[in-house]
Amino acid sequence: MSHAIDETTSFTPRFDQQGLIGAIVQDAADGSVLMFAHMNAEALDLTRKTGLIHFWSRSRNTLWLKGETSGETFRVVEMRTDCDQDCLLIRVTPQGKGNACHTGRRSCFYRSVTGTGLTFA
Amino acid sequence: MSHAIDETTSFTPRFDQQGLIGAIVQDAADGSVLMFAHMNAEALDLTRKTGLIHFWSRSRNTLWLKGETSGETFRVVEMRTDCDQDCLLIRVTPQGKGNACHTGRRSCFYRSVTGTGLTFA
Repeated sequence: MSHAIDETTSFTPRFDQQGLIGAIVQDAADGSVLMFAHMNAEALDLTRKTGLIHFWSRSRNTLWLKGETSGETFRVVEMRTDCDQDCLLIRVTPQGKGNACHTGRRSCFYRSVTGTGLTFA
Repeated sequence: MSHAIDETTSFTPRFDQQGLIGAIVQDAADGSVLMFAHMNAEALDLTRKTGLIHFWSRSRNTLWLKGETSGETFRVVEMRTDCDQDCLLIRVTPQGKGNACHTGRRSCFYRSVTGTGLTFA
């Protein structure tokens, strides 16, 4: 069943009780999912205005230009939202060396879940 | 800076205060991001045991086999977790007709955010 929010052309992001919305970051070139983090309204606004991804850090309680320290920024190619507008999918071109994860890896999703634990992919 | 949780081979998913963890569903064949939803521990356990994605519905407050009604289930090809283990990336093969979104579309991310609103992609 479709609802008005599924078909509208108004962008009305649904922030959660903490004022946050999840954002999936995907490499526009090859579809790799690079990371997932949260935005508040200000981070979303700055992302749209600057074309560079900003997040809200839940652990540090602060606005955060992704890559401000490391140089590993993400330039927005396209931003999408889902049917109920409570999640964002942002296709990007990684800047810097392309090692987006704070561990130095290209993607934060570098481990597979197996029957008994994790293996490095 | 890397921490133990970044390098461990123990799978210790970090559920939030509501007992939930976000899960990105990606088509294993072409890398399209199909949807994003949440799992509680039971949904994650059932997903791992059955190979079919289960979620926790926050709006309906119930465990949910994705596609139970529509037939649009997702077979797990690979499950990954991120550096701090607070998000899952699940590569799947869509079953059914491949119209995963409840609106009948293939992906829930069918609208682009523009300067003024949304356009259908």
